[in-house]
Amino acid sequence: MEEAPPGTAPGAIPGTPRPPKSEQTRALILETAMRLFEERGYDKTTMRAIAKEAGVSVGNAYYYFDGKEHLVQGFYDRLAAEHEAAVRGILDGGGDRDLAARLLTVMTAWIDVARPYHQFAAQFFKNAADPASPLSPFSPESHPALDAAISIHERVLSGSDIKVDAELAEVLPELMWMYQMGIVVYWVFDHSPDTERTRRLVARTAPLGARILRLSRYRLLRPIVREIRELLSEFLFRR
Amino acid sequence: MEEAPPGTAPGAIPGTPRPPKSEQTRALILETAMRLFEERGYDKTTMRAIAKEAGVSVGNAYYYFDGKEHLVQGFYDRLAAEHEAAVRGILDGGGDRDLAARLLTVMTAWIDVARPYHQFAAQFFKNAADPASPLSPFSPESHPALDAAISIHERVLSGSDIKVDAELAEVLPELMWMYQMGIVVYWVFDHSPDTERTRRLVARTAPLGARILRLSRYRLLRPIVREIRELLSEFLFRR
Repeated sequence: MEEAPPGTAPGAIPGTPRPPKSEQTRALILETAMRLFEERGYDKTTMRAIAKEAGVSVGNAYYYFDGKEHLVQGFYDRLAAEHEAAVRGILDGGGDRDLAARLLTVMTAWIDVARPYHQFAAQFFKNAADPASPLSPFSPESHPALDAAISIHERVLSGSDIKVDAELAEVLPELMWMYQMGIVVYWVFDHSPDTERTRRLVARTAPLGARILRLSRYRLLRPIVREIRELLSEFLFRR
Repeated sequence: MEEAPPGTAPGAIPGTPRPPKSEQTRALILETAMRLFEERGYDKTTMRAIAKEAGVSVGNAYYYFDGKEHLVQGFYDRLAAEHEAAVRGILDGGGDRDLAARLLTVMTAWIDVARPYHQFAAQFFKNAADPASPLSPFSPESHPALDAAISIHERVLSGSDIKVDAELAEVLPELMWMYQMGIVVYWVFDHSPDTERTRRLVARTAPLGARILRLSRYRLLRPIVREIRELLSEFLFRR
């Protein structure tokens, strides 16, 4: 992900300069919306109620966000930016080069960053799973957050010491994102304290994933790797 | 799946005896509900409206189904039974023993059987994706339909000529069901005519799956197979 230029940063991301007033208003509206979505449910919260609760005019709220869906997109973008900020040091600095360790760190950081939104996610999940919704991760509106998430996995990979089949390397960040989505769905359904079951699942699957990737260099698996690559670009990531 | 005894068969399944009157009433209520769900949406359809439209008393409707959720469970069960009836000959009789061919046949049969419900599935999907809902495939209420679906994959496997690692064989039907769920989600989102993209995806992934399974016997992959088996029983199928 590129560094967000000052003035467009979604809210207070650690390590970015203090945002100007318009950004503070935008962040306030977003935070108010998130709170109301959680308290009243997404379906029952109106733009009018969000504006009132945030102490801004309805026109002002619409100036920043075209509607409720865009507020959720704002939430996706913020979550992606917070995640990126949390793992930046590990991804770019001299962090561990072991792929399993890198993947585990990044996934655990996501669970930490997303922790305040767990309840919201559970009640919200069904909207994102609606194929007709712009809130689906595959909708055009979600592309920026999707790209940000995938680019984190590009950096997990590029800073690691793993050697993978060249053809696989092309689609690996997308495969890793799909793994992340699987974990996210598990996390949404997870009612264990502090979602510790999801944490254990990540601790188990990150090394397994790295192990499977190391196998991809074997000639025996070459045709399978090629077929997976083609399937992904033909059926899933056609953008 | 066991043969449904007469009198408990969910509606008119080909190859089963003509159901008694109570079963006809049950099927009528179920069909009416499905139609109303499709026409008015699941959320807006009441038990009262279903009873009225089916020409039965509200009390009678509740005699057969405890509520709307149970009607959807009835739909799941019916879909599973129709699917089973459609593939019975292939699974038990002298059908193709090639695993890829068997899997392709079973998956294509599912798409054919589910065709009339595609629109309903699209509008309904978000309810099934709600973790709190009894309509989730992992809810206790869904276990009969889940068991029926998994047992179809047991028969896909047991009649095939494939030799797989013994440890993998234990969890393979569950893995194949997860593959089916992936295809179902793709199908829900698929807007191509007659969901032909999903059909092509099945035609590509069924042979790929069989190919991956054949590899599972290699000693090299043994630890990975073992770990996948343990993860499935620890994190997903704890019943």
